[in-house]
Formats: sequence, C-alpha cells, structure tokens
Amino acid sequence: MYSFTNDYNETAHPILLEALMTASQQKNGGYGLDNYCEKATNQIKKILQSPDSAVHFLPGGTITNLTFIAHTLRPYQAVIAAESGHIAVHETGAIEGTGHKVITVKCTEGKLTPELIKPVLEEHCDEHMVQPKLVYISNTTELGTIYSKDELQKLYKFCQANNLYLYLDGARLAMALTAPDNDIEFTDLAKYTDAFYIGGTKVGAFAGEALVINNQVLNYDFRFTMKQKGAMMAKGWILGVQFLTLMQNNLYQELGNHSNQMALQAKAIFTQYGFTFAEKPQTNQLFVNIPDNIATEITKHFEVYSFGKPNSTHTCLRFCTSWATTQDDITRLKHTIDKIIS
Amino acid sequence: MYSFTNDYNETAHPILLEALMTASQQKNGGYGLDNYCEKATNQIKKILQSPDSAVHFLPGGTITNLTFIAHTLRPYQAVIAAESGHIAVHETGAIEGTGHKVITVKCTEGKLTPELIKPVLEEHCDEHMVQPKLVYISNTTELGTIYSKDELQKLYKFCQANNLYLYLDGARLAMALTAPDNDIEFTDLAKYTDAFYIGGTKVGAFAGEALVINNQVLNYDFRFTMKQKGAMMAKGWILGVQFLTLMQNNLYQELGNHSNQMALQAKAIFTQYGFTFAEKPQTNQLFVNIPDNIATEITKHFEVYSFGKPNSTHTCLRFCTSWATTQDDITRLKHTIDKIIS
Amino acid sequence: MYSFTNDYNETAHPILLEALMTASQQKNGGYGLDNYCEKATNQIKKILQSPDSAVHFLPGGTITNLTFIAHTLRPYQAVIAAESGHIAVHETGAIEGTGHKVITVKCTEGKLTPELIKPVLEEHCDEHMVQPKLVYISNTTELGTIYSKDELQKLYKFCQANNLYLYLDGARLAMALTAPDNDIEFTDLAKYTDAFYIGGTKVGAFAGEALVINNQVLNYDFRFTMKQKGAMMAKGWILGVQFLTLMQNNLYQELGNHSNQMALQAKAIFTQYGFTFAEKPQTNQLFVNIPDNIATEITKHFEVYSFGKPNSTHTCLRFCTSWATTQDDITRLKHTIDKIIS
Amino acid sequence: MYSFTNDYNETAHPILLEALMTASQQKNGGYGLDNYCEKATNQIKKILQSPDSAVHFLPGGTITNLTFIAHTLRPYQAVIAAESGHIAVHETGAIEGTGHKVITVKCTEGKLTPELIKPVLEEHCDEHMVQPKLVYISNTTELGTIYSKDELQKLYKFCQANNLYLYLDGARLAMALTAPDNDIEFTDLAKYTDAFYIGGTKVGAFAGEALVINNQVLNYDFRFTMKQKGAMMAKGWILGVQFLTLMQNNLYQELGNHSNQMALQAKAIFTQYGFTFAEKPQTNQLFVNIPDNIATEITKHFEVYSFGKPNSTHTCLRFCTSWATTQDDITRLKHTIDKIIS
Repeated sequence: MYSFTNDYNETAHPILLEALMTASQQKNGGYGLDNYCEKATNQIKKILQSPDSAVHFLPGGTITNLTFIAHTLRPYQAVIAAESGHIAVHETGAIEGTGHKVITVKCTEGKLTPELIKPVLEEHCDEHMVQPKLVYISNTTELGTIYSKDELQKLYKFCQANNLYLYLDGARLAMALTAPDNDIEFTDLAKYTDAFYIGGTKVGAFAGEALVINNQVLNYDFRFTMKQKGAMMAKGWILGVQFLTLMQNNLYQELGNHSNQMALQAKAIFTQYGFTFAEKPQTNQLFVNIPDNIATEITKHFEVYSFGKPNSTHTCLRFCTSWATTQDDITRLKHTIDKIIS
Repeated sequence: MYSFTNDYNETAHPILLEALMTASQQKNGGYGLDNYCEKATNQIKKILQSPDSAVHFLPGGTITNLTFIAHTLRPYQAVIAAESGHIAVHETGAIEGTGHKVITVKCTEGKLTPELIKPVLEEHCDEHMVQPKLVYISNTTELGTIYSKDELQKLYKFCQANNLYLYLDGARLAMALTAPDNDIEFTDLAKYTDAFYIGGTKVGAFAGEALVINNQVLNYDFRFTMKQKGAMMAKGWILGVQFLTLMQNNLYQELGNHSNQMALQAKAIFTQYGFTFAEKPQTNQLFVNIPDNIATEITKHFEVYSFGKPNSTHTCLRFCTSWATTQDDITRLKHTIDKIIS
Repeated sequence: MYSFTNDYNETAHPILLEALMTASQQKNGGYGLDNYCEKATNQIKKILQSPDSAVHFLPGGTITNLTFIAHTLRPYQAVIAAESGHIAVHETGAIEGTGHKVITVKCTEGKLTPELIKPVLEEHCDEHMVQPKLVYISNTTELGTIYSKDELQKLYKFCQANNLYLYLDGARLAMALTAPDNDIEFTDLAKYTDAFYIGGTKVGAFAGEALVINNQVLNYDFRFTMKQKGAMMAKGWILGVQFLTLMQNNLYQELGNHSNQMALQAKAIFTQYGFTFAEKPQTNQLFVNIPDNIATEITKHFEVYSFGKPNSTHTCLRFCTSWATTQDDITRLKHTIDKIIS
Repeated sequence: MYSFTNDYNETAHPILLEALMTASQQKNGGYGLDNYCEKATNQIKKILQSPDSAVHFLPGGTITNLTFIAHTLRPYQAVIAAESGHIAVHETGAIEGTGHKVITVKCTEGKLTPELIKPVLEEHCDEHMVQPKLVYISNTTELGTIYSKDELQKLYKFCQANNLYLYLDGARLAMALTAPDNDIEFTDLAKYTDAFYIGGTKVGAFAGEALVINNQVLNYDFRFTMKQKGAMMAKGWILGVQFLTLMQNNLYQELGNHSNQMALQAKAIFTQYGFTFAEKPQTNQLFVNIPDNIATEITKHFEVYSFGKPNSTHTCLRFCTSWATTQDDITRLKHTIDKIIS
C-alpha cells in the first residue's frame, strides 16, 4: 500500500547515497572537524551571502531545536511559538526538558505575527513571570503554509525592536523556498533571522539538519552545548557530505520543488472533486476534507494520517508528498479516487 | 494609604509570634527533625483523620509546588493546570525549570473539570507528546472561587480512573474551607487528593506551607528532593511551631473565616452601588468592575491591583482582604466610596 | 543533654526576635521590595564600601548557592570546589540538579589555591569536557579553617586572569571575620569576590542569607531566577529586618566572635589534655581526636557528631559552638572531661 | 599521513554500506517502528538468549548514556563511575546536564569493583547527600582494558544486593568480547547487567548504538524519554539495517577481533623495542611510553594522540587501531619505527 504519510519514509536521494559511498574511501577528522563539513559550511555561507554566519550539522530536528534553544536562553527565559509549533506539540516537551517554557499563541495558518506576539510581551511584565526571549517559527509551518518575505521581515524587525531572537525551524525549508507563492530567498534567511536550520531529513538526506547561526553572539561556545546534549556526531562528515551535495547545483531546491509539484497535482485532483482544504494548500502537505465514505475507501488504498473530522460528514486526511513521490504515485491516486467516486 | 493589595503584607498573627518566642528558649534538632514538626505533623494527621499521610514543612508556595512536582514526575511527564493556575502564570516557569511542561486549559471560574481534562488526554496519545500525569488545582483558585465537594470528588475519581495524580495548591486553603458556599472539609482533602498543601504564608504565618502527601508512593525519598531543591530549612521547627499553633483551636479556619467576612462586607458595599464582579466573589479576593472615574478616586485612598478594563468605561480592581483586615478598614472603605459617589 | 552538634539549633538571637516583633506592627511590600530590605541593603553596601554591589535576601544556604550558580553559568559550564565543599558533599546534588558539574579538588585545610585550580583548567581543554567557570570557596571552610587576605587576593587575581568567577559561601562568615588569625575585612569581600553571601542562619538569624553580587553583570535579571527557583520570599522583609539588625552596631561580628571565643576555650581544654585536632582549630568548629574510651564517656553527656576514627584508638568528635553557647556550657564541658579523665 | 588517532575515522564497513543501499529502495515506517529495527531487535535478543530484553537504536554514545540515565534515575539519584569513565570526563557534563551527579572513584585499569563502590555507599548515608543508584562501567574501558566474567558477575551481584543498577557502556564492546584475555560472552551481558549498549560507531557503523535494557522496569515508557532528548531518529531503520547486518554471521565480533589483532601486532613491535605500556594492552588501544626523540619522529609519520609524559624522558602515545586498519598499515608502522631506531 502506497504511503502518503510522511516525507521521511525513504532512506535518501541516490545522489546523496553516492556521495556517501565516495566519501567512505577515506579517513576523516571526528566531530564535524573535517573537510566535508568545512566545504559544506562554506557552500552554505556562499549561498546565504553571509560569510559571518556559523554552520553546525546535527542529526535531527528535535535535537537541533533543543540544543540551540538551551544554548541561547538563560534559565528564566521562554520561547514564543504558534500553538501548532512543532516544539509545542510534537517533541515530548524537549524544550521544557531543558528548563524553558514554551508560550503558545493561537493563530491562523500556523503563523506568528507581531500583532500576536505583542500581547504576550505586554502580559509578561515582571519577574514573577517567565521572560519571553526567543520567537520560534517554522517555514513551511506544521500546517504546510509559508511565510511571505514581508511577513518575515516584519517579524524580524519586531523581534529586533523588542530584544527578542527570531529562530526558524526549516525542517521543510526546501518546500517553503520553492512554493509557488513563495518570495523568500536563501539570502533573506541570513538577513532576517538570528538562526535557522536547513532541514535535511525531510529533503532527501537520511539524517541531518544544518543549523545556521547568523547572530554571532549566539554561536559563542555552541559546540560545548552540542556535545553536552549528544548532538555532536563522531562521524560528522557523514552529515557534511550530504549537505555539500544538497547545496550544490540547486539539488535542495529541486527536491523541495518536486515535493511541491506532486502535491499541486494532488491538489488539482481534490479540487476537481470539490473537496475543500482544512489548511491553505501551499506546499507538500495537503489537509483535505473528504466525505466519510470516500475517505474510508481511500484509506484502503493509501496510507495517510487522519486529522479528525471537520464536521459530521467529513474526515480530514493529510496527504504528504516528498522528493521520492513519483508521477505514477499521483496518477494512481487520481485513478483510485476516480474509481471510488464514479 | 491602606493596602488591599494582598493577604501577605503583614508579618504574622500575634499568637504565632508568641509561640515562636516561646520556642526560642530551647535547642531543637535541625532540618525538620524536631519535636515541633513532629507535633504539628501529628496534629495535621489527626485533623485530616489520615494517619498514613506524610507532612513536610517548606518555606513558600512556589518551592512547594516545584519540589513536589519535580519529585513526582518522570522526565517526560507533564502537569495539567487551569490557564489561570499559579504555576502556569506566576512562578517564572518554576515547573518548566525542573523539566516539565505545564499544559494549560481554558476554563471558567479558574476551575478544572473532568470534561476539560478529557480532551487533553485524548490529544496526548503517543510518545511524540508529553504524557499528562498530574492535575494541578488551587483552592481557592487564583480567581477567588472555590471547588465544591462534588467537583473535587469527581475530579479525583476521574484522575484515579485515568492514572493521574491530583495535587491541590492550598495557598489560600483557609479561605476556601470557610467560604459561605463551601462544603469541603479537611478530611476530604486527605480522601480526594494525592497531595495538597496547607498554606501558611497567606493565613497568618510569616512563612511556610505544610505539604501533605496522601499517596504514600509519592512520599518515598521525598526529603532527598526537598534538600536538593533548597526547600529543607535548617531551622525547620520555626515552621513546625507555626503550623502547630495554626492547627490548634481552629485558629487556621478562624483566620480564613475572618478574611472572608471582611471581603463579604466589602462585597456588600460594592453591590449596593451596583458594581459587578469580574469573577464570582466567593472568598477574600474581589475582582470588581468599577466606573473609571470612581476607580481613579478609590486608588487615591487605597492601594489595590488593577486587572485591566472589562470595557471602555470600567476598570477591574482587585480588593484582597486578610486575617489582619479590621472592621475599621472596611468602614473606611465604605466611607471613602460613599464620599466619592455622593 | 547539651548539644554541640551545630550552630543552628537555636531559634534566633533575642535582638533579632525583638526587631521582628516591632516590624510586625505594619504592612510591608511583598517579595523583598520593602523598606526593611532596602535599608538592610544600604547598610550592607555601606559596610562593604561598595555602592554598586547588589544585595538579595534568600531563605537558606543551599537555595542561595543553587540560585546564584544556576543564574551565573551557561549550560556547559562547571564549578570548581574543594572536595570538602558544601555544594560538593552536603546539598544532595543541588548544583547538578540545575545542570552543572561540580569539579572537586583534593586540598589541605579545605582551601583552594591557584596552584590547585591550574591543573583543572589545563585538563579541561576542549568542548568534549565541561568548561570550568566559577570557583566556589567557603569561609570559614567546612573544616573550620579560614582564608587569609593574601590567599583570597591571590585566588581572585588568578580567577580574573583566567576568566573565572569567584564565589564565596559565607554560611559562617561571621566566625571567619572574627577569628583570631583573620586579616580579611568586610570591604575585602566586595573587592576580591564576584559574589558572596553573608550567612544568617548560623549567626543568630532564624533563617536567611544575604547574597551580595559585586560583579554587576551577574546581577542582571537575578530576581527572575530567584523567583523561578522558589528563593523569593513573599514576606521578604522578615529577612530584611534580621539583616538590618545584624548589620548594625557590629552585632554580626559580635555573634561570630562569641562563637569563636567559646570554641577557643574548649580548644584550651582539649589541648590541656593533649588531644590533637584533625583540622586546624581556627573558628567555632573543633574536630578533636579523642581516645575512644573518653570519647564514649563524653557522648554520654554531650550531643556531638562523630567524624570517624583517625586511628584504631581514637575517635574524631566535632564540637560546634554558636552565638548561643554560654560560659556555663563550656564550664560544664570542662568539668565533665576533668571528671572522666581524673 | 596515516592516522592511529581513533576507531571512528572511517565511514562504515562496506557490507553495512551495501545493506544501506539495498534498504534505500523502499519506504519504511518512521521512528524505529519498521521491519529492519524489528529484525535487528529480534536478532540481538536471539544472540543474547534474552527474549524479554528491549532494544532501542540511538544515534551516538553520549546521547545513549544521557537518555538512559535520565530515564532511569529520580532527581536526587547519582551515578557511580570510574574516574576515567567517559561520562565523567568526555561528555561535557551530559549527565549533570540532565540533573544527576556523577560520583567518581579512583581505580586501577579503569575498572570498578565492589570494594571500590562500598565506601561510596557508606559515605552517602542520608538525605543531605545524593543517593547513589546506578553503577556505570565501560567494556572495553576508556583505557583499553577489559572486565573478566568473574569481575562482571561480582559487580552485578553486589549491585543487586545493594539496590543499584548496573549499566555497561559498550562503545567498544566488540573489542572487549574478542580480546585474547576475554571470557565474557554476549549472553552474559543480558544476565549480568540491567542495561548496556552495543556500540556501532566504533565498530564499522557510520552511526548508531543499540541500547539493550534487560531490567524491564527500566524500559517502561523509554520511548518518551528517547523522543524528548532528541534521540529518536525519524529514519530509525537506517540504524536497524546496520545492526541487523552487524549482528549476522558474527560480523560484529569479526570487526572487533580484527581491531584487536592489528593492535596485537603493533604491541609486538613496541615490546620488541622494549617500550612499556601506561595501561595494560588488552584491546585496540595501546598507550605506549616512548623515548621522547623516537616519539617525535613517529608523530612525523603517523597521527596519534599524546597522553602526556610518564617521566622526563618519555612520552605516552596512544595508538588506536580499528576494523579498517590493514596489515599494510601495521607493516608501515613497523618499518617506520625500525628506521627511526636503527
């Protein structure tokens, strides 16, 4: 049964596996102090046009988030996140596990705005309350939506004005940067965030995220915290090799774009049948409201996650495409739905 | 200027001070292992009719909450609290500081119910999310409201059925137990909670809370955690003396009742002038919606906290009475308002 | 049975109790923001001749240590302490509980020196090891010995040169400053430490320590961490009253001196009988090696702690005097030993 | 320049890379819930003859240690480790970072014994001190030595009798199990530890350790803690594939044995020239005391770590062989030394 459950169910893109094979012929320095990590770092800084940014390679999203946030905040400081933020919902309290509160904000499309953050700052007015210090956003968001350049700039400007750090979780950054509606470029991320990570796990790497710290103060001694949290891989070059490969010849964007294109085709199918979307369908995650009987039939042919019932007659199913989704997979989806409905 | 800001602005009730003086004539064992603590413990257990409960004396509310919760939960477990819960709002992330998430629930009157908790349990379904394990309630609540015996029983039954601990923050327990609407007795707290604390700081003690652990499993090695968190006072008998005194001759209830009676009189004054209450006025905290111009005048004569504006023409002021509020204080309040309005 | 077990077995010095009584006549601001705390702070700063130091009042020694250290260090930074340091031995891992390693150093007389610290710095050379950042010393030490001014200055100079903070635990500071061998003055503590605390619990207060932060950077937002760790007392003025009293008319030094004088007399008794001392007897703690049979007899008349056996025929008993030890107590000790031995 | 610095400077053994390639053809369930992890788990349990053990795959040694220990201990409990233990020295305070003290014990050959642990238990006698609860050992130790079966059994028996958990860090377990002096078998590890991990990173895997929890109580909810600490890989099967491969056809032991054999040959060379060993040369790490002038020459031809100077005329160099060290590498080492000395 074909799976649209996630974008991390395939090992790795063939070009990355090949690069890994090539790299396996030689000895490399440990703990990320090797030629591959150095080259990948330089390549990322070049693409960002940000020579002063620092780059670190970590094995996964949760550990990247917790390591960076634990390193950045003082004990009484807190994170502000959307109610749907990954750190707020799906990381088993990883941030709280390092001692910090995650203040959540109800919002639309899973996106934070200065207007939503302002009341949080006003409310947290003295030493009897945590001190909000870092704004966590995801692009794409956990709902598949994206920030516009204008939204990102405004958020960053607001954070700067209010002495807050802006950190962007880029688990699906490739999909965000290549979405049809997107106007953010790689260089904007260096300009308008204090730090962000370039997600590898969901974009063709078998593991690994590249954390980019633009605010140099936050990079100070970062490798100590990396080591303490277990985020420093002995064979760090394995991540370096993958990011060096992803960041060359636009491969990263290509894989993101492919994921989106497959979703766009799926979206067209759903739209054609009049299905609505629980979340604005902008990237590779589609949250589709489907009549119950049809939904039941679909799940006999495809693995998908259910996201509850928007009303008594419909079910919301999430279809998640990836760099590995093929034209055939989408065609099969179309045929299956055609058949169910006809 | 007379202050209605809080119920912990006076040192301690004279009887407690006197008891403290008497105790100062002798040498006592350190760290809570002394005769006063033993007697106070026995007295509390007698009142609770709960010989198997354990009692510990800690210096304040925040440290009692964080020590008990840190002791009770495993790393990935979380607390469920009302959105207005003290640990969620006014303890600078003390619980998160020990590694645990506080899941907040919107609710009315600051009170949790099984119906409100059930969706939290349903939502937290797997290892990618924290595991809710302890329900935190306050009585009186932070809004001055109280739980009924039926509400408490239902909550406890629900917790038992769902493998949750029920912990009650009794910072203002004296006021709850003596509120006109109350039907909970001391013995119910031993029966229907896993642990709770009898608040001293806001009820005539100069410091100190008596933590009662009814669920014996949770008491195991508790003194180790107490010491680690800095919650074990070298001269523990100073807390023992106070609680021994408070728990004799109904002094504790008397002080709570006095606080409530003073508030009731104030409530009558406000009602007479047609002012409404932002929160149900059940105990010694009154949240009164007052026309702006009158509110301004009042704050020239009394210190009170403002709780924002319920609408464009009114301000919500909190009047908090205490064991030390006198009949004269209330009379002066009445005269002042009479004068402003006339 | 008279107890020489500790210097915190009596409630509080009468002058402090009296001051407390006087203060109980009025209403005070909460959380240490009151007139008493302000006056006590000013008095301490005046005595220290250090107008830029900050002063905070906390309820006990362990919570003072853990709050200050947690506030000061970044996640991967560690404390250096003597093997006998209170935080290393007798606080149930309070510092580790906030996430920080305590690196211990074997040393004589319980005192750290630059020579002892240097190898620790050399060994901790990269990000695979914790980063030593704060040097913790106690004066008096846990063994009753004291630092000389020269030793303190050298330590501080070394810390400054090596980017380390120097923090002094002054649980028994009064005894240190009034020891016969002492040449450190209060003003030196402001000059030669980044922070230290003036111990109250063991010097006649019923509770409370006054933390003095000389290095202003470390004071930034300190009240947030205080609140989070449960170290901010609602009725903070109770500590303020006591320190205001202790810091006036040399009461603090007087109480320290009295403790030492009583110990000096006891020391003379022990010396007269040829007993040796396991630790250099400089202040109010005497670690006396006593022939087993005599030791056994002594413990029938006085409560004391045993510190093991220095050899097969002797037992080490600790005699701890306090501000409350009387001339009669010492006389009784002498008579008892005379009688045992004769 | 050939490197004898470490056993984790090569990507992965060809058979593992091949297995990885094969697995990359298909979709797999996320987070370790896939067929490969299941098969690898079963294979490990079969080899251990321990059907009730639980197996988890984590990305590295430090994160395995910190996740297991954080999961196992209550807040006030501590670990006992050899002074040379990896968690005590080379993990940047990872264990303290989760709140737990590591009590270190001076010992010979880097090994703990009941005799060494007993005094620690005696010293930690009450709630003012941490509670020792878990004994951490490494096999091979950090010094390249190994435990005998008798030593392991005695330790475990002692731990059982004293209510302690025994946890074994098996980063180099393959080398331990195949050392010439070894008499421990895989099945013994299931019988005589509460938990241990089978190290992959240093034995031919590109990353990954297999944590085996024999004491079922400690496995309860373990996946929650794994997720919280960032130790649960999205593409867990990548670790499963490698361990399934390593655990088949004795590959794991073969790689360990090869590492040891290469070291044995190197040892023969050093012995021939009369060099002594700072640590007993039992496995793939040789700590060789070499006359300074010869040491200097050697480091011109080979990368090795220096471990200080045992005396004024010698330097201690560590030679670490691996599964990837070839006969040629050793021959070249011999020729180089021959040439230097002749």
